[in-house]
Amino acid sequence: MRIANVDGRAVIVLETGFVDIARASNGRFASSTRELLGRIDELTSWFADEAPTPTEAIERDELEASRRLGPVVEAPSQIFAVGLNYRTHAAEMGLTPPPQPMIFAKFASCLAGANASFPIVSPRTDWEAELVLVVGRGGRDITTDAALDALAGYCVGQDVSDRDLQMAGSPAQFSLGKSHRNFAPVGPWITTRDEVPDPNDLEIVCHVNDVTFQDSTTHDMVFHVPEIVSYVSSVCELRPGDLIFTGSPHGVGQGQKPPVFLRSGDRVVTTIAGLGTLRNHAE
Amino acid sequence: MRIANVDGRAVIVLETGFVDIARASNGRFASSTRELLGRIDELTSWFADEAPTPTEAIERDELEASRRLGPVVEAPSQIFAVGLNYRTHAAEMGLTPPPQPMIFAKFASCLAGANASFPIVSPRTDWEAELVLVVGRGGRDITTDAALDALAGYCVGQDVSDRDLQMAGSPAQFSLGKSHRNFAPVGPWITTRDEVPDPNDLEIVCHVNDVTFQDSTTHDMVFHVPEIVSYVSSVCELRPGDLIFTGSPHGVGQGQKPPVFLRSGDRVVTTIAGLGTLRNHAE
Repeated sequence: MRIANVDGRAVIVLETGFVDIARASNGRFASSTRELLGRIDELTSWFADEAPTPTEAIERDELEASRRLGPVVEAPSQIFAVGLNYRTHAAEMGLTPPPQPMIFAKFASCLAGANASFPIVSPRTDWEAELVLVVGRGGRDITTDAALDALAGYCVGQDVSDRDLQMAGSPAQFSLGKSHRNFAPVGPWITTRDEVPDPNDLEIVCHVNDVTFQDSTTHDMVFHVPEIVSYVSSVCELRPGDLIFTGSPHGVGQGQKPPVFLRSGDRVVTTIAGLGTLRNHAE
Repeated sequence: MRIANVDGRAVIVLETGFVDIARASNGRFASSTRELLGRIDELTSWFADEAPTPTEAIERDELEASRRLGPVVEAPSQIFAVGLNYRTHAAEMGLTPPPQPMIFAKFASCLAGANASFPIVSPRTDWEAELVLVVGRGGRDITTDAALDALAGYCVGQDVSDRDLQMAGSPAQFSLGKSHRNFAPVGPWITTRDEVPDPNDLEIVCHVNDVTFQDSTTHDMVFHVPEIVSYVSSVCELRPGDLIFTGSPHGVGQGQKPPVFLRSGDRVVTTIAGLGTLRNHAE
């Protein structure tokens, strides 16, 4: 099942249309994705039982490229991000992967829909394709065995990064340097976990102006999805709708020789196999 | 005016009782503090015009020490924290204040009421008394001149810190090391900005088991409140109910010779003149 935020309302995406969840369920489920995500199993059952007809007709490909898509969760309680989680990316940044997941924040005001544009805020504005985990049930002290069951599903994310600010002073500035307006496009929708047999077996690709810069698999993560979920939940309670950016593979602009950064008008296209595509351009 | 979260409901605190805002206003204002804070001027006017009678009688001192107080905002969109914002504290940590505010996050699941207990999670669990800004109107690109008007008010905060995790790997881990359960007691209430002539002229004190460890003034901040608000808003949109921890003066446990850390049963009492007192103990 694919759950999107269209015009600010939670919908289930079908091949040729979508179902407004609150409307089709007569209010049994909320119109905000965040409030649904803790009840994802119940929602899945309802959808299977009722097989509701679309409330609006639109081809899935057309919806996927639409500006009507908002961030998959409008206002998460927490947005975690893992730094340096692919060995080859750490190497291209001249850094060593840490012995435990390095966690920073993306602040919520930087969230954007799948096809949003973002500003060029410094001469070193860069891209990072990432798998994003969407928390369902959540909890504290989740074991690696139970980790995937705590999620509602997965989506594609761009961890747009201002390298100047990110590296200013100390790595503590990671959070701010990755939180400018629209620096976190996420989408196009949440693909529920039952449709993703292994989140660490997905091809992840990023094109900039039709040139392939990133082309890897999520298998190459240093800390795989269950370890990330378990580690973060050992410190912070994961809550329905929380997002976890899982790090980017090699091929970012900073890692090119010589480095390449984004300029006004550039088009960044980010795809994870089975999860969909984000199309963002630099303002 | 003092706005607290009592039993999960927004109230105005008086000398001998409190007013449940949603009830006394017949629903004109919401029962969650977060939803009120963008309308703080309207709320202030309503309170002055209506002079509502208390909905519950309780001495203010008794309320201040009560476990009925929840975090002043239950679920902020964003919690920013400024690191190394007092020169003498940076020095005792063996670090240099950065040329611009160093911003990390406290993740929302660590928020707690004024008198909550918190766990000892490592042998180096430490205290940090801090002035906390509560965003009202908020916005982007706020000038220093307009900064105080973007706030709803101020409260006291404890930035409880697990030095082991905070320093693990790199300063990027600041956010996680300061986000264990109940590591962010905030309160006892929001004192609205009209009652605080200068947020950088407040005495800030922290006692541990009746020994005075921190006793400074917010005047000693490297970046004063207007500069912090302006800087953060130059990157992130500030939203009603967002919290900003402004850094701690010298006198934390890590800075003692030899260092002193918290142990189970310790009592931490944090006071800012005019804003109130937090009473937290280590579980």
